Amino acid sequence: MYKPTSITKLLGIETPIIQAGMVWVSGGKLAAAAANAGALGLIGAGSMKPDLLKHHIEKAQSLTTKPIGVNVPLLYKDVESQLKVALECGIRIFFTSAGSPKKYTTMLKDHGAIVVHVTSTPELALKCEQAGVDAVVAEGFEAGGHNGRDEITTLALIPQVVSAVKIPVIAAGGIATGSQIVAAMALGAQAVQMGSRFAVTKESSAHENFKKAIMTSGPGDTKLMMKNLVPVRLLKNKFAEEIAALEDRGADAEALEQLLGKGRAKSGMLEGDLERGELEIGQVSAMIRQDLTCKELMNQLSREVQATIKNLNALF
Amino acid sequence: MYKPTSITKLLGIETPIIQAGMVWVSGGKLAAAAANAGALGLIGAGSMKPDLLKHHIEKAQSLTTKPIGVNVPLLYKDVESQLKVALECGIRIFFTSAGSPKKYTTMLKDHGAIVVHVTSTPELALKCEQAGVDAVVAEGFEAGGHNGRDEITTLALIPQVVSAVKIPVIAAGGIATGSQIVAAMALGAQAVQMGSRFAVTKESSAHENFKKAIMTSGPGDTKLMMKNLVPVRLLKNKFAEEIAALEDRGADAEALEQLLGKGRAKSGMLEGDLERGELEIGQVSAMIRQDLTCKELMNQLSREVQATIKNLNALF
Repeated sequence: MYKPTSITKLLGIETPIIQAGMVWVSGGKLAAAAANAGALGLIGAGSMKPDLLKHHIEKAQSLTTKPIGVNVPLLYKDVESQLKVALECGIRIFFTSAGSPKKYTTMLKDHGAIVVHVTSTPELALKCEQAGVDAVVAEGFEAGGHNGRDEITTLALIPQVVSAVKIPVIAAGGIATGSQIVAAMALGAQAVQMGSRFAVTKESSAHENFKKAIMTSGPGDTKLMMKNLVPVRLLKNKFAEEIAALEDRGADAEALEQLLGKGRAKSGMLEGDLERGELEIGQVSAMIRQDLTCKELMNQLSREVQATIKNLNALF
Repeated sequence: MYKPTSITKLLGIETPIIQAGMVWVSGGKLAAAAANAGALGLIGAGSMKPDLLKHHIEKAQSLTTKPIGVNVPLLYKDVESQLKVALECGIRIFFTSAGSPKKYTTMLKDHGAIVVHVTSTPELALKCEQAGVDAVVAEGFEAGGHNGRDEITTLALIPQVVSAVKIPVIAAGGIATGSQIVAAMALGAQAVQMGSRFAVTKESSAHENFKKAIMTSGPGDTKLMMKNLVPVRLLKNKFAEEIAALEDRGADAEALEQLLGKGRAKSGMLEGDLERGELEIGQVSAMIRQDLTCKELMNQLSREVQATIKNLNALF
């Protein structure tokens, strides 16, 4: 049912669906399961020392023969070692984010790799294209985790990015169902990247407490916070309330950094501390009510896409 | 090309497109032009005393034989007189917002009117249904003007509202082009409501300065502000900078109300004071580059919808 797009051809995948590389949630197990189910599986390197990243890549490679990739936020100190280790392990698909696309794109392309950079504005998308990346992920305000400062939503962002660049565009933020996949592709995206929905799969490393919190969350239960430091969308909990109280009093970056401290994301997402942990998740949280395997999820998405196309044909 | 939907049948219109009722921008002239071009035209009563509303309804009725409606925010003191005048003039389509759907729905339905209420959450949509409204407008975070507190984007909101209620759903926020119309309908909406795009038409009452500011705005040039008073999305200007500075210092409702003062929206949108005026517009502002007639706009949207459907059929 899914026909080839410029992105499926670029990445060598069967469906125009990419499992987002997420901190603490998407290790080798999830990436391999997503790949085996027809998506592109991405290992989230952001939370991994180079040795652990190597372990996860090898694990994924032992579980699938399909291509997998690595997501590398360019803001951590281990970046160069992470890229080196991934290249040595044979990874040739890199999703980079949170930094300049100019810095590593040429080096990665010299190694024969495909480079995709994450952007939240049409202006940055153009800079990505000029830096030589193969495609961009355009991620909207509704996305979980780190987010752009301009707060442009996926519905407003995708057509603007598609107009701004000639390279293919992958839509991210607010996509958890087949109808949202079709909507994103209607806007001109050639594929979608889904994070939150893959965080709640059997193969995800998210703690069971975190998965349950997502599956019982309500529509207004996430919030974009810490804008004076690095904007991040979080599930509301005690920690998020503390941030909100601080922000209401006009907190600056230093005050927020002090409250944040160290290890909050790990303790929340991997270890399941729902009170004190940082729970990164998108607005679609409230639409995720079931903990499926990647295979079940991909089958469900396929059925939903078909039903949506059928509905659209009745409307136009 | 547009096939009938539950909303086109309910409202007696040819296309599933509603021109939003906006303060200072959508008088009788715009509503009639939108209606003559196949959309539902709405007069924005929010900025009108009952006498002026009567004048605009009669003007619209002199310019079209198609049905037109009135948008009435339920937060102003003149509400009851506005509803009375509109009913006396023969209006039988009411879009209500910014207040409880329980208050006037029964009275309006007793007069044989169709009632549509604007909501920004699935929970309120359900309350609207229980209050007996015929349909809801579900409006996302990217919309211009007054906005919900939960900041749910259109892409995340529409499927959740569609799941929550049995009555038909109209999508609003972030819709200015044919691809965005198709995206909204893919999500389960039975029609779309477009504000910003109709604000920049030849028949809109928006001041030329305001229209030009929209047509030259960039992607990140709107912001949801005044959250401690009533959240409103504004085009960035000197006034918006003053709000931002106040908010950075943790301003409360009283401080914001004092800065806002009286007549800011009129001076900005109708009178064209781009420095001191309040310029309400959605995130799609940056996608609007041309000042078309309603007829030209509707023709363009129709071509874009057709192209989008063709693209989708190549992808699925």
